[in-house]
Amino acid sequence: RIDGSRLWDSLMDMARIGPGVRGGNNRQALTDADREGRLLFMRWCEAAGLTLGVDTMGTVFARREGTDPDAAPVMIGSHLDTQPTGGKFDGVLGVLGALEVVRTLNDLGIRTRHPVEVVNWTNEEGSRFAPAMVASAVFAGVLGLEEAYARRDAEGLALGAELERIGFKGEEPVGQRRPHAYFELHIEQGPILEDEGVDIGVVTHGQGVRWLEVTLTGRDAHTGSTPMGRRLNAGLGAARVVELVDQIAWAHAPHAVGAVGQLNVYPNSRNIVAGKAVFTIDFRSPDLAVLTAMTDELRTGAAAIAEKMGLGLSIEEVNAFDPVAFDPVLVGRVREAAERLGYSHRDIVSGAGHDACWVNKVAPAAMIFCPCVDGLSHNEDETITPEWASAGTDVLLHAVLATAGV
Amino acid sequence: RIDGSRLWDSLMDMARIGPGVRGGNNRQALTDADREGRLLFMRWCEAAGLTLGVDTMGTVFARREGTDPDAAPVMIGSHLDTQPTGGKFDGVLGVLGALEVVRTLNDLGIRTRHPVEVVNWTNEEGSRFAPAMVASAVFAGVLGLEEAYARRDAEGLALGAELERIGFKGEEPVGQRRPHAYFELHIEQGPILEDEGVDIGVVTHGQGVRWLEVTLTGRDAHTGSTPMGRRLNAGLGAARVVELVDQIAWAHAPHAVGAVGQLNVYPNSRNIVAGKAVFTIDFRSPDLAVLTAMTDELRTGAAAIAEKMGLGLSIEEVNAFDPVAFDPVLVGRVREAAERLGYSHRDIVSGAGHDACWVNKVAPAAMIFCPCVDGLSHNEDETITPEWASAGTDVLLHAVLATAGV
Ligand SMILES: NC(=O)NCCC(=O)O
Ligand SMILES: NC(=O)NCCC(=O)O
Repeated sequence: RIDGSRLWDSLMDMARIGPGVRGGNNRQALTDADREGRLLFMRWCEAAGLTLGVDTMGTVFARREGTDPDAAPVMIGSHLDTQPTGGKFDGVLGVLGALEVVRTLNDLGIRTRHPVEVVNWTNEEGSRFAPAMVASAVFAGVLGLEEAYARRDAEGLALGAELERIGFKGEEPVGQRRPHAYFELHIEQGPILEDEGVDIGVVTHGQGVRWLEVTLTGRDAHTGSTPMGRRLNAGLGAARVVELVDQIAWAHAPHAVGAVGQLNVYPNSRNIVAGKAVFTIDFRSPDLAVLTAMTDELRTGAAAIAEKMGLGLSIEEVNAFDPVAFDPVLVGRVREAAERLGYSHRDIVSGAGHDACWVNKVAPAAMIFCPCVDGLSHNEDETITPEWASAGTDVLLHAVLATAGV
Repeated sequence: RIDGSRLWDSLMDMARIGPGVRGGNNRQALTDADREGRLLFMRWCEAAGLTLGVDTMGTVFARREGTDPDAAPVMIGSHLDTQPTGGKFDGVLGVLGALEVVRTLNDLGIRTRHPVEVVNWTNEEGSRFAPAMVASAVFAGVLGLEEAYARRDAEGLALGAELERIGFKGEEPVGQRRPHAYFELHIEQGPILEDEGVDIGVVTHGQGVRWLEVTLTGRDAHTGSTPMGRRLNAGLGAARVVELVDQIAWAHAPHAVGAVGQLNVYPNSRNIVAGKAVFTIDFRSPDLAVLTAMTDELRTGAAAIAEKMGLGLSIEEVNAFDPVAFDPVLVGRVREAAERLGYSHRDIVSGAGHDACWVNKVAPAAMIFCPCVDGLSHNEDETITPEWASAGTDVLLHAVLATAGV
């Protein structure tokens, strides 16, 4: 079993970097705080005797050699970047849990046949730079490196330039390392495990995602002197599409969710009818047909709203991944590990996107979920217990042992 | 008659300061551009032989002496500050038209009994610092100086500090000068005069205004893994209140308007259900009872929306002025001037707020409107013709002559 208090201490140490305003974290991708977090993680890896590598997307690989020089690595990890108002565990548990697995192997003097590599993927959250899971997407060959570099944050800063600025544009070609298998431990970020009092979620599938970016164009006008009938109110149009997104999601619930998380109106002045609104839509479903239907309904409905209001409309898809089925053999190993260790478990579908979803395209992958309080995530109040963290990491250790060979 | 081409040249010179992005202006209150605009205006005033004074709210008074040392001044003016995406004429025409009146009096060697003072009021627009017409509100004694100084922009900068920074916190106590009368020339900012082909709007009344600032509080949550039924979506709540504002305004149209111009959701991340939304509401009506009814309906409706969605709600009133009836004698002089000069005219209610509305509390005041193309204002495309500008300024000249005495 792993050392739960060492794991917890590392989680708390990492949480001191990029503090939030209410006890959580703001360690957004490629900020100075992200850099500091990466450097701490790398110091820990070196202390554990691991060999570091950084690829051209800034993803960090920390390798523990195996006994078979020809064997491909078993990769384990997640991400250290957070939302602007993020928690201390989303992603971080998967990286530091993986580090704890290696530390435990060291303590026990266990040598595995396959190398084990701890991975920290760049910009998983997708909040600062869309799409989410951008580094694993490049790793899986579904997104070009230059395309990823060109993504810009709200201030117009490019991902490639920011990667260089924080000193993490590595030398290693992305995707050069081909994993034998990939396991990712993560908090559920939803309420199911806690509601049912279950220790471990055996993740069989991941929801598909569509991120749309919508621009409505009307006409800036005076709020006082412009008659109601002569307004081209892009802000009001945005409100109607926000409502439509909610209606579409409910129509397909419980196998779908949808929301508008980011919304900006222009010029954003109290006494100007907004001439422009730009906002994002996040639709998810484990069912590809539902996902496609939601997107189609949105396009039709938004077009009708825009037409009726005399607004210009453009919709861009900035993130699209289809529902994922994880590798049945690895999923079976997760289930068996939980069973063997005496943890209660259930099969579960991931509501969030994860790097494992992309890695699964090029290598067998699977995930382990542990509960989080009230299903809360992407919130500074996100909480887990040390026991949940330990149980998840124990399962990770045993899944790795079963896969890497002793 | 005034010199229309000199007036137009001055308007175009001023428009070079604080250029917008599409041909209009961004010369928001107490920015460096505002400072530069003020300095240009003051150089012109000095060249016209006027004596300058600046009060502690930064309002600039440029005085042309009268023949009677005891007579109170006839004030004429408006504002040089603009919206972030403002036009070249909103406010500016009233200030430079007033300057043109003085230049014309100089050219013709006319000495008036009452002094004539050209005024540039600070922060009329209210976009950077709410409320609008803040300096004339302090002038009229309806707002305290310290309260005005404490108002903050979106970046948290205080009005008083910004006034000091640009060097326009004057020495003169606000309201020390008591006008004999006040006239303000302004573009209509609505479509009525142009639609009807009328040269001059004789402004009899001004609409009342209520500005509300609404905060909805929910809970940041993951857009993918949080079930639809467990969300406290403040962004969706905001969308519903935006729709409600529109419904309320239409229910009272054509004697009411309403819109949400400013809207921010937090943390404004693509994959976070927004835990907070802050937005402004602008309701207007020439009828106090309607204004009160709209505000009441909003409070009731927003409370119902928030309660149903489990959101926290707070509503703050940041600007409130009641419908205004301008001074009948001065209004009559505007009408007579238009008549005498052969300009077509009609009585009209101002849809926008103006400094004249506040000055009217402490001295007789009236306004002159000229048309603007397509009723467009608070838009960089705002346009008027040189002929409209000249006609309005001619009427201003004659109303001043009738009031200041020769
Ligand atoms: N796990 C997680 O929060 N990933 C961010 C991408 C997403 O929105 O699902
Ligand atoms: N005239 C004008 O646009 N004033 C700004 C205040 C208002 O919103 O009415």
